[in-house]
Amino acid sequence: MDVWTSHYAQAAQRIGSSAIRDLLKVTELPDMISLAGGLPAPEIFPTEEIAAATERALVEMPVAALQYGPTDGFGPLREFIAARMRTLGLKIGVENVLITSGSQQGLDLLGRLMVDSGAPIAVESPTYMGALQAWQLLQPTYLTVPVDAQGMDVTALEALLASGAKPRFLYVVSSFQNPTGVTLVPERRRALVALAERYGLPIVEDDPYGELVFEGERAVPLAALDSQAHGELRHVVYLGTFSKLLTPGLRIGWLVAPTDVVRRVGMVKQGVDLHTGSMAQVAAYLTVKDGLLDELIPKLCALYRTRRNALRGALEQYLTPYATWNEPTGGMFFWLKLRDGRSATQLLQRALVQRVAFVPGAPFYPNGGGDDTLRLNFSNVPPERLVEGVRRLAAALAES
Amino acid sequence: MDVWTSHYAQAAQRIGSSAIRDLLKVTELPDMISLAGGLPAPEIFPTEEIAAATERALVEMPVAALQYGPTDGFGPLREFIAARMRTLGLKIGVENVLITSGSQQGLDLLGRLMVDSGAPIAVESPTYMGALQAWQLLQPTYLTVPVDAQGMDVTALEALLASGAKPRFLYVVSSFQNPTGVTLVPERRRALVALAERYGLPIVEDDPYGELVFEGERAVPLAALDSQAHGELRHVVYLGTFSKLLTPGLRIGWLVAPTDVVRRVGMVKQGVDLHTGSMAQVAAYLTVKDGLLDELIPKLCALYRTRRNALRGALEQYLTPYATWNEPTGGMFFWLKLRDGRSATQLLQRALVQRVAFVPGAPFYPNGGGDDTLRLNFSNVPPERLVEGVRRLAAALAES
Repeated sequence: MDVWTSHYAQAAQRIGSSAIRDLLKVTELPDMISLAGGLPAPEIFPTEEIAAATERALVEMPVAALQYGPTDGFGPLREFIAARMRTLGLKIGVENVLITSGSQQGLDLLGRLMVDSGAPIAVESPTYMGALQAWQLLQPTYLTVPVDAQGMDVTALEALLASGAKPRFLYVVSSFQNPTGVTLVPERRRALVALAERYGLPIVEDDPYGELVFEGERAVPLAALDSQAHGELRHVVYLGTFSKLLTPGLRIGWLVAPTDVVRRVGMVKQGVDLHTGSMAQVAAYLTVKDGLLDELIPKLCALYRTRRNALRGALEQYLTPYATWNEPTGGMFFWLKLRDGRSATQLLQRALVQRVAFVPGAPFYPNGGGDDTLRLNFSNVPPERLVEGVRRLAAALAES
Repeated sequence: MDVWTSHYAQAAQRIGSSAIRDLLKVTELPDMISLAGGLPAPEIFPTEEIAAATERALVEMPVAALQYGPTDGFGPLREFIAARMRTLGLKIGVENVLITSGSQQGLDLLGRLMVDSGAPIAVESPTYMGALQAWQLLQPTYLTVPVDAQGMDVTALEALLASGAKPRFLYVVSSFQNPTGVTLVPERRRALVALAERYGLPIVEDDPYGELVFEGERAVPLAALDSQAHGELRHVVYLGTFSKLLTPGLRIGWLVAPTDVVRRVGMVKQGVDLHTGSMAQVAAYLTVKDGLLDELIPKLCALYRTRRNALRGALEQYLTPYATWNEPTGGMFFWLKLRDGRSATQLLQRALVQRVAFVPGAPFYPNGGGDDTLRLNFSNVPPERLVEGVRRLAAALAES
């Protein structure tokens, strides 16, 4: 054992890499069709607008863009986010907003603020595996709440809380959940916010996909319901991001929280990276400040709807004998359950031989299970490749 | 107590904000002269070069600049850093380099990889307060090693190790140390690397200021000596950054380490922020790839030398009755010791009334002490303001 390995922290000796990230390496092979990953479509990145905004940032505000900046974030960007969140119904001000290095960093910062080793976190099962990865070194325990077609089963959560469980917080991806694609329905949202009040339950609402709506209305965030009930944000911390709306490469996310949480998270962030990239923040602000998102989001939704439809058609054509699924009305993912309890992990090996990749569902289950599930991404794959990918997947399934 | 506060992690209930960062808020008042902080001079940020590089990044490599990217960093930038580190004598390849969100993130990632609660870290006393802040939530203990005009007292470290102390690593700012401005002399560097070998001691070498040399040669990094002794990097992890050379706002730092450490740090970083900003990495790469740093660094050194000289002159003129100091031959800081054990913390209050700010030394001492010390920055203040600032400081000292 070398000098570093022998000095690693206990928790760090057991960490593993994300199955998704490792898979992404394989998916770079030629002629591989990747339905893994969760990348937005680069075809409609507003590259020219970002280039123009960055140039303006460096000409008009070179010091704001290039010098050290405040830990909470670039003021005008925080103001913009606060205003945008208010249009979603949140009763908040700029003091409730902190800019993060992607919403992944929000998960990390909140974990460090809230979680002692062995402490419980309540999560959906399945849940976003990147959250589990963010909290890996903290070694929490997980209280799991099942998910059905209407989102998290709030009645099951209530039973958990009524039995005396005291999670540090509940983590929920409220719209077009990763990995299942389901959205928490309005009556469950209201019930959940009422539960938070009754049990003093902090809720971390992660909402990267909420604006990617193909049918119907954008759901009202839990943070809106909570802040409307109390005249201020009280039980919910909301995580948002430009990664799925603008581009991931800027690494701009945000956290909306009660002011004391913003202050504490800011103290943690100081030690973590001082602040999020200044140039990226100023460029993002100048890119979006005059309404670009209102033009861009409908285009994104139209593109992803077409791809969702293509994937749905291909699933119906090729996979009906092998799996069931429910159709997402937004977001980026289909979630499949293989018939007869077949293993998606084993299927992946054969699928890779057929040159198609996906993400097996098991790593999304914090306490195990789900080996007969898998996630398919449609946002980053053109329709004809989606169809061909599913055809290959059916071939892999037929083989076994 | 609100719902969040009552759920905070134990360690998070005790965190505080950085004295430096809090001070920076006061220093924005009009007519305040700030000798606090550690900001580079924005006057010579290569703004036009960065603007041109960013434009090129978005035209020529839009997907690399805007899409999700690899956790280890943008390949060509890693290659550039590896080549640059080789010119400093490090025997390493691209597989030894990981891009971080500023070198502050390197401190955070290494802390999480190496430190269990209560475990010891060996540090200089005084040491960089941002490192202490990065590790705050981990709740380590600190084994302190004194610093004199030749840098860390390696004999004192040896006595510590010989007595059986087993720090997870030694943290050392090897050149123009923050806060003292001193540089570890060559014979101590050799002795330190030999000690690391003898005792199996991991060393984290933080070197943000090493290139800011006003007189003499750039010091050979500990990482160079270690890798030359073994044909590969073995005992030293090196942290570098563009923050002091190019601009801080890009948040581009790097970590050079044995490959297993790079792999593990990469796993931690995945959960922390997925990766450092893509646009900033591609822009930084295109900014520096054709030799800009070789033009820029001499200009930086000339500017800072002039300012160092101005501050030295002012100190001699105004502060001789009140303090002693040793003259830095590079970097950004003077370190003062007040005569007769006067308190710099108390002095600060009077200094702020005189409209001059500095950083008291006490927070740089992990285990207490140093209340008669203070740090003055000269990199971000024009000569006449340096002189006026010291005059005000003398007035504050004369009052008490």
